[in-house]
Amino acid sequence: MTVDIAELEQRARRLLTPEVYDYYAGGSGSERTLRASVAAWQQHWLLPRVLRDVSTVDTSVRLPGLPEIVAQTPVGVAPTGFQGLASPDGELATARGAAAAGALMIVSSRCSRRLEDIGEIAADGEGAWWFQVYVMRDRDLTARLVARAVAAGARALVLTADTPVVGHKRRDRGEDLITETEFTVNTGPLADLSLAGQAADLTFADIGWLARLSGVPVLVKGVLRADDARACLAAGAAGVIVSNHGGRQLDGAVPTALALPAVAAEVGSTAAVFADGGLRTGADVLAALGLGARAVFLGRPVLWALACGGANGVRNLLSGLTSDLAHAMTLAGAATLAGIAGVTRTPGSA
Amino acid sequence: MTVDIAELEQRARRLLTPEVYDYYAGGSGSERTLRASVAAWQQHWLLPRVLRDVSTVDTSVRLPGLPEIVAQTPVGVAPTGFQGLASPDGELATARGAAAAGALMIVSSRCSRRLEDIGEIAADGEGAWWFQVYVMRDRDLTARLVARAVAAGARALVLTADTPVVGHKRRDRGEDLITETEFTVNTGPLADLSLAGQAADLTFADIGWLARLSGVPVLVKGVLRADDARACLAAGAAGVIVSNHGGRQLDGAVPTALALPAVAAEVGSTAAVFADGGLRTGADVLAALGLGARAVFLGRPVLWALACGGANGVRNLLSGLTSDLAHAMTLAGAATLAGIAGVTRTPGSA
Amino acid sequence: MTVDIAELEQRARRLLTPEVYDYYAGGSGSERTLRASVAAWQQHWLLPRVLRDVSTVDTSVRLPGLPEIVAQTPVGVAPTGFQGLASPDGELATARGAAAAGALMIVSSRCSRRLEDIGEIAADGEGAWWFQVYVMRDRDLTARLVARAVAAGARALVLTADTPVVGHKRRDRGEDLITETEFTVNTGPLADLSLAGQAADLTFADIGWLARLSGVPVLVKGVLRADDARACLAAGAAGVIVSNHGGRQLDGAVPTALALPAVAAEVGSTAAVFADGGLRTGADVLAALGLGARAVFLGRPVLWALACGGANGVRNLLSGLTSDLAHAMTLAGAATLAGIAGVTRTPGSA
Amino acid sequence: MTVDIAELEQRARRLLTPEVYDYYAGGSGSERTLRASVAAWQQHWLLPRVLRDVSTVDTSVRLPGLPEIVAQTPVGVAPTGFQGLASPDGELATARGAAAAGALMIVSSRCSRRLEDIGEIAADGEGAWWFQVYVMRDRDLTARLVARAVAAGARALVLTADTPVVGHKRRDRGEDLITETEFTVNTGPLADLSLAGQAADLTFADIGWLARLSGVPVLVKGVLRADDARACLAAGAAGVIVSNHGGRQLDGAVPTALALPAVAAEVGSTAAVFADGGLRTGADVLAALGLGARAVFLGRPVLWALACGGANGVRNLLSGLTSDLAHAMTLAGAATLAGIAGVTRTPGSA
Repeated sequence: MTVDIAELEQRARRLLTPEVYDYYAGGSGSERTLRASVAAWQQHWLLPRVLRDVSTVDTSVRLPGLPEIVAQTPVGVAPTGFQGLASPDGELATARGAAAAGALMIVSSRCSRRLEDIGEIAADGEGAWWFQVYVMRDRDLTARLVARAVAAGARALVLTADTPVVGHKRRDRGEDLITETEFTVNTGPLADLSLAGQAADLTFADIGWLARLSGVPVLVKGVLRADDARACLAAGAAGVIVSNHGGRQLDGAVPTALALPAVAAEVGSTAAVFADGGLRTGADVLAALGLGARAVFLGRPVLWALACGGANGVRNLLSGLTSDLAHAMTLAGAATLAGIAGVTRTPGSA
Repeated sequence: MTVDIAELEQRARRLLTPEVYDYYAGGSGSERTLRASVAAWQQHWLLPRVLRDVSTVDTSVRLPGLPEIVAQTPVGVAPTGFQGLASPDGELATARGAAAAGALMIVSSRCSRRLEDIGEIAADGEGAWWFQVYVMRDRDLTARLVARAVAAGARALVLTADTPVVGHKRRDRGEDLITETEFTVNTGPLADLSLAGQAADLTFADIGWLARLSGVPVLVKGVLRADDARACLAAGAAGVIVSNHGGRQLDGAVPTALALPAVAAEVGSTAAVFADGGLRTGADVLAALGLGARAVFLGRPVLWALACGGANGVRNLLSGLTSDLAHAMTLAGAATLAGIAGVTRTPGSA
Repeated sequence: MTVDIAELEQRARRLLTPEVYDYYAGGSGSERTLRASVAAWQQHWLLPRVLRDVSTVDTSVRLPGLPEIVAQTPVGVAPTGFQGLASPDGELATARGAAAAGALMIVSSRCSRRLEDIGEIAADGEGAWWFQVYVMRDRDLTARLVARAVAAGARALVLTADTPVVGHKRRDRGEDLITETEFTVNTGPLADLSLAGQAADLTFADIGWLARLSGVPVLVKGVLRADDARACLAAGAAGVIVSNHGGRQLDGAVPTALALPAVAAEVGSTAAVFADGGLRTGADVLAALGLGARAVFLGRPVLWALACGGANGVRNLLSGLTSDLAHAMTLAGAATLAGIAGVTRTPGSA
Repeated sequence: MTVDIAELEQRARRLLTPEVYDYYAGGSGSERTLRASVAAWQQHWLLPRVLRDVSTVDTSVRLPGLPEIVAQTPVGVAPTGFQGLASPDGELATARGAAAAGALMIVSSRCSRRLEDIGEIAADGEGAWWFQVYVMRDRDLTARLVARAVAAGARALVLTADTPVVGHKRRDRGEDLITETEFTVNTGPLADLSLAGQAADLTFADIGWLARLSGVPVLVKGVLRADDARACLAAGAAGVIVSNHGGRQLDGAVPTALALPAVAAEVGSTAAVFADGGLRTGADVLAALGLGARAVFLGRPVLWALACGGANGVRNLLSGLTSDLAHAMTLAGAATLAGIAGVTRTPGSA
């Protein structure tokens, strides 16, 4: 393995203040879902194929976007908030690292830097990005923010659907860490900060609203059920991201590794399914793709890399994992991502 | 999480004598069922729904009773004996706490206080209560006690069906703790105390006997089998409470979390199914309701709260758990209790 | 619980020499089967019934024999070798204890005392016994031993089928412990001791041979497969004992708790199925009967009881477990052994 | 048990340099597959048969080869590289030990000794050998090596299919251990060493190429999927070896014990299925044969035996395991290898 994320986390922990580390590392409630999310990938076994020509291995992947995106790797950056806490350049460094690795970045609504500055980096390099949307209580404010993101180059929207309110976390003292300036960098000054809080009355109809508003594809993040995935697509989504929000929302929510099979079985043949949560190795990524994910996203590991090495750290993480994935693909007999289908054996199957 | 029951138990343990703590905390036999009852809730995963309007969440619930009860929360108080051991005011404090939280209380046949005094508290506030019945060897004495409870305001009876004899417990020195005065506070002086012992010859016909006798709905507590649940309903029960008596009766009896699915599948569509045993968090409550319980009851946690904080302690526990449940409902996309159906994934299902 | 077998074993261990303790306690190979045999009973959960009249509970059971046996308890004594190592009176003490408890004893071919002396004890009291047969290389010697046992009062034969050779044991220095006098007490002096070794060429036809020879019912011990159980019955057996020989024969053999369901499902409706191995509590016995066993047998626990308390120790063990079983039956709603059917839930069933 | 491989490994570890020990002992990635491979055999239980005539037990087995091979034991030697690191005589000692035990040896392409010298030993004794082939980037070189092996007496080829590249190992410093002389002992001096690297463009067609080239049967090693096994046979293979390459290739690959049942079910009725990986006892071997393997191979244990005792060590290991297998067969009621079919119960079956 090129990449050792546990070691990376330990290094980052020494560099960050305890408050910032806990803000990133913590989960909701008893942290049951947080703990299980990493371990659950190992409930699957891999069934490699032999005697396939793997003299060249191609990790590139087509991703929804306007225009459509071809990324060099299915390992992308999940949206995480206020990356300025991890590194002075915050999302700018992450964007540079992702672009250098040919990886997609999902930029959070809650970012420390101006969307235009992030967008410029992507436009200069190989980068492409999606914009993650929290629909705020003030829908007009939401609409203006979305427009600003699309103007800055976001090629798709990622609607976070699992956060009508923020999950309760014991370890989380993060709310004190964010300055008002940082909070409003992309919204402009707000008369009432609570207007930027998440709306709790979202429905599937908001998918269509965002699509019409933005003109770009909309993906829904936080889907853990097959029936919800189908409903998202029926409402106009271009795809879904299977995620439990890093174990930070409903404690007890199913790990991604155990939710992905049913979602992919239900909608994977007609729409793009993605996954995040608990992935730590190239073999984990292979397992996720083998279960039907088109690409995966990493949250905390990117923050640890950012804290330890800025843009270079992010690039090394993403390139390293991509290299580990390519190695695993070679050993699994998969010359392309399409060849990975079916290499993952779920618990209980023979 | 608002509520941390493990911490609450540790505080209570310091306040109580070892004899009283063991009387409450112990289980029968090897305590296998006791230990498993808490852990078993975590064999289930939650499958939250997204994009449901959860801007308001309603935890209120209709419960069997004459007249029918509308409680503010599906988290109620399980019957536990002789609460005077935990707090000077005993059941009176519990009743005040439950009423303040808008929660149903099940008052034990074995209570330290006069039923009329308990009933008054409920009548003054938001409280409603059911009366738990041990059918005693002396049926007339049982009938008089039931009549007294109904006169005092009990809106339903809870027939404990799993206690033809008391389970053997290693840790239990409780029999020495109860004074005769306390034992007979609601029966009046007894010529022969053994007449108040549980009858071992109960049958399903006793459900009808109690219903006719009392004129209020009868629920059966201690049901762990689907066929027994059906037989209870056929014999006139208004519902069943899935329970292993807190791991205090048959050691090796299945944990509630693992028995509830089959019972709810068998009778949940036509009758009210309830559950107690091992529930410790709002997520646990959500899981139980997701498996088909209409409401749940807490035993030991209420005793710890009572010991630590009297009526306020009980109110804070019940309100806190209700708040945690409402938070979990929000995150699970359930604006009402009805919306919780199906959010719990049982082991082995995909 | 009345009986604590782990504590009993610790006491016995202090009383016995290490060689004798290891001879009794050890298992074959890596002792994988030995370890699992106790733990496997706890893979099952009990599903007690409620609202059955259990004001009297009857543990008596009809057992195959000529004449048929009615024992007071389904908890009997498994055959274990050379009990003179555990207590001066050896099998005589065990027989007295079993008779006092109204329990069946299976007397081993390898016993330290004369069969006639053992038989007299049973004839005097409530005891009944079966004779366990190792078919020896010398069939005539076997026939004479069987005839002697039947003449002494054995009411059935138990053919041990799982011992064509003795399993290899690391801990076992037992072969040095047995004197030639002890070894030949029931065969008379042997010109060639190896003739008393087990025959490795037994087939199902030997069941019929033993039945004709003895005129009493023949049970087959060591059956772990449904197809073998059926073949035994087709060959004339009166029943089978599901057993892995206390983890002393094939290491890796399935624990009784996991083998019993399939055997009982295959032949339990038409023949008597018994079980031994790893049973330690009344709840374990209830579980075994709930899976279809008509009665169960205990090996090592009897030896510990014998070492600690002689005949009284054995009686206390058997009576105590019977009392614990009766208590568990009461709590499970089973007034008779027949009422236990179906109270055990196997892993994987709902 | 005659053989204690854990103890053997500890002795070998003291004798070998840390570099050599790690080269042999290590696995790829997180070593998840390495760890699971041994433990997974214990997810199965054995279901011994009773009342079969096992007065003689025959462990001999027919194996593919030109001419066909009859080995005295189904326990053979898996191909492992550069055995000169473990013992001065390297593969010569292993070949002597295997021949003395009547066991098949698979000689690695990467061996420390001349194939002709190895072949002579086999020709002198009871030995038979297969030659393991890494198809090299230089196909002509491969063809010459294969021709040399067949000329030296190899009776079949074993095409390693799971190694298009070498798995990444943390512990592995082995590449520095091999001298160029050793590396080229069987190829002759190479202008460009990389030509001897594995080809990554193998396909099922290479099975036929090797068969035509060599004129001997070709087996494919590294098959973990039923569909791949079928494809190998369709392409002309004489059989498959279920293997994850000792946990040294794809980390996360399924343990052999869990992959074997599906492969054997798919092709076992028409072709020879073999297995290696994690087998440590005669009971493990019995389990593998019970799942459908015709024979099994041991890798690391042979290296430990070779390091500890040279040819005698290898013979003792193989004879000891064969003796333990024969003992287990006796206890399982299997007089021949064919009688072992069906004695292994897979997880989840009843």
